Amino acid sequence: METTVVDNALTQISLYLQKGQWEQAISLLESLRPPDQADVFEDLDEQQQTELLPRLDIEDSADILEEMEDEEAAELAIRLQAEALAPILDEMEADEAADLLGDLPVEKVREILARMKDVSAVQPLLIHADESAGGLMTSEFPALRRRQTVSAALACLKAWAPEEEPGSQRAYYLYVIDEQQHLQGVVSLLDLIAADPLKQVGDIMDPDPIAVQAGTDQEECARLMSRYDLISLPVINGENRLIGIITADDLVEVLEEETTEDIQRLGGAQPLQKPYLNTGVLEVTWKRIGWLLLLLVTATFTGTVLRYFEYELEVVVSLAYFIPLLIGTGGNAGSQTTSAIVRALAVRDIALRDFARVLWHEMRTGLLLGVCLAAVAFGRALLWQTGPLVALAVALSIVAIVVWSTSVGSLLPLLAARLGIDPTVVSGPAMSTLVDATGLFIYFSIARVILPMI
Amino acid sequence: METTVVDNALTQISLYLQKGQWEQAISLLESLRPPDQADVFEDLDEQQQTELLPRLDIEDSADILEEMEDEEAAELAIRLQAEALAPILDEMEADEAADLLGDLPVEKVREILARMKDVSAVQPLLIHADESAGGLMTSEFPALRRRQTVSAALACLKAWAPEEEPGSQRAYYLYVIDEQQHLQGVVSLLDLIAADPLKQVGDIMDPDPIAVQAGTDQEECARLMSRYDLISLPVINGENRLIGIITADDLVEVLEEETTEDIQRLGGAQPLQKPYLNTGVLEVTWKRIGWLLLLLVTATFTGTVLRYFEYELEVVVSLAYFIPLLIGTGGNAGSQTTSAIVRALAVRDIALRDFARVLWHEMRTGLLLGVCLAAVAFGRALLWQTGPLVALAVALSIVAIVVWSTSVGSLLPLLAARLGIDPTVVSGPAMSTLVDATGLFIYFSIARVILPMI
Repeated sequence: METTVVDNALTQISLYLQKGQWEQAISLLESLRPPDQADVFEDLDEQQQTELLPRLDIEDSADILEEMEDEEAAELAIRLQAEALAPILDEMEADEAADLLGDLPVEKVREILARMKDVSAVQPLLIHADESAGGLMTSEFPALRRRQTVSAALACLKAWAPEEEPGSQRAYYLYVIDEQQHLQGVVSLLDLIAADPLKQVGDIMDPDPIAVQAGTDQEECARLMSRYDLISLPVINGENRLIGIITADDLVEVLEEETTEDIQRLGGAQPLQKPYLNTGVLEVTWKRIGWLLLLLVTATFTGTVLRYFEYELEVVVSLAYFIPLLIGTGGNAGSQTTSAIVRALAVRDIALRDFARVLWHEMRTGLLLGVCLAAVAFGRALLWQTGPLVALAVALSIVAIVVWSTSVGSLLPLLAARLGIDPTVVSGPAMSTLVDATGLFIYFSIARVILPMI
Repeated sequence: METTVVDNALTQISLYLQKGQWEQAISLLESLRPPDQADVFEDLDEQQQTELLPRLDIEDSADILEEMEDEEAAELAIRLQAEALAPILDEMEADEAADLLGDLPVEKVREILARMKDVSAVQPLLIHADESAGGLMTSEFPALRRRQTVSAALACLKAWAPEEEPGSQRAYYLYVIDEQQHLQGVVSLLDLIAADPLKQVGDIMDPDPIAVQAGTDQEECARLMSRYDLISLPVINGENRLIGIITADDLVEVLEEETTEDIQRLGGAQPLQKPYLNTGVLEVTWKRIGWLLLLLVTATFTGTVLRYFEYELEVVVSLAYFIPLLIGTGGNAGSQTTSAIVRALAVRDIALRDFARVLWHEMRTGLLLGVCLAAVAFGRALLWQTGPLVALAVALSIVAIVVWSTSVGSLLPLLAARLGIDPTVVSGPAMSTLVDATGLFIYFSIARVILPMI
């Protein structure tokens, strides 16, 4: 639906810009919703972006910079003057402004901070790591006091609300603090409305809110929010002082980011930080080459196994026909297992202590799979007229290889998790290569025992 | 953090249950948060579950059934009497109750519906497909009228709020409808609080809310909600009548479900519907065997390629050593590309019309990768004393195979998407097998040209 909106707007705005019809371009852009504005804006060329942004309403400029991909926003910001940027950053949500500043050169950050009207909300956020609770949180949010009456609390909110953007999620859970900012409880906006106006906030709040430390990893924050269905999550420091809140819109971004990273790692590459088409060929190559080189070198071990069985290969050339089939099947069975385990670990269906149950589960599955596959492979080998003994060797090898690869495929991610390595990293390609070499060793060993001519 | 909470509670509750200390077990269970209650409950044995649930507070029973995995909740419900179940379902949120009923046998559903106090909210939800907007939505939510004053709207909400569970996300966006239930606008709870109490709702609402049809796929709903940072999404029928709303907690579940499916498909298996350890060996085998069989059969084509080059293999046995390395490298390079493309499609970084740009991007990346890998493989082949000509054949083949597999790896998912097939399905293992056979054909063709003895 919004793809069409964005495409149409983009075509029209490009036309306006070519003709120098700034006003038309601006009013069309400003009529879109912020994520759509950002999409259109990202597709304009650099010069158009640099010229257009300072002419927009300051609120729209802030929205666009918030919604753009981090790297693109940073590139645009670098091209703008500090004088033009400072008021836009003043208008942005503090956490987004801090993220953007974190991507700029130190010199530029200094220039911008010197020109901003209010740096008190942004500056404390600059010290936190990007992927931690502190890096996600915003430091601007309403807070209540225990002894406040409900009607006084609502009046505070009423005074605070007009500053908020439409769609802001910062005021649906209200956190209760004392004079030293210690977190004491939480009350939802709905509960506040439903409560007797003369009651005290302390009487209706939940005195045991779920909270995280500033250093908590963003993935853990996302997991807590999704597990307990939270619209916002309070961030505290070591002394239980409330220093910020994380809202659900940030959570969804984190989930997307982490999923992308997992999927790219399962494919055997380091995660790209930018949208696919904006990442240059050199950068993509760089992200992928390390893994490919490593696998190439380990794959030569498989070659070494073949060299070791040189004599068998020379005597019975037809043994070679089944090499791709056997290593393919082993790799496929192993990667099915690995992706099931990686995901089960991620959603906490299994824990490390379950490794014996998991292994037993996968070995039985492997045996069943192996027997079915062996029957088919046996038939196929007979059709190739390789002789019943070669066919038997292939069939027995398949059973052994599939049991072996489902076992390795289940233990590797658990071992990785135990050692504190991201289990997605060892999965997929790495597992296949390990299974390749050992699988061929199994195959030729079985062939050596069964075939009389060897 | 909550892993420890759950584990400790589970140990303690099991102890209480063994000693027949029901009251202690119940009061400990009821002190936990709902997702933790459900986790503990899922780890009890069937008999304990069946005995314990009817003794719990009806609200806790409802929470537990809502939070349990769908299949486990259904299994438990089947074991319970309709008399015991009906009041629990009355207490559950309508969308969750409808989901549970959808997993039960028709006869049981009839018995339960006959005993429920209020089926008007649940029954209309039963007709919608599980994975559509209609299947996700709830039909119980507050709605406002245009001509209502802000203070009247707040009074309505105040009357409605006490029915809500803590943490409910159904009243943060309030939808405005007319007498025929036509959707006319949306206003956030915060805006309502901030507005002049004498103004009319129609004057402060956003008259152009984002909405979906009941048949819209859940993935599309999740995408809209995350793109536009929505806490809830209105669902309309063909006549623009508001029939339900989807809340952000459902969205997070959908995102998790879809990610799990994607990751399992990338690993080459049909998605499991249940938590890993609860899925039996037979069922797991069934989900995986089809794919493995298909790949086994296609892998025999690779064997056919080898048979075709039987003569070359007999003359130069050392050519065989490089088979695993070449098909491995081709498969790995291809799957890196495929996972990058699948993910870029999913997050809409690329569209189908970008296929030429994507192909050009991947071919150049493939060339660069191929040249680096070829240099290393050339050196390795020389070390194996296979002679410089075999080493040259291997190096040239790697360049060709990597360019070929990055190209195939980028086009396959785009082609699948074009044909309306889930691109994750063709990726990973399927792509590897395709690249295997063609890769070996490239290799032996190059060898035939270069090696004088063939």
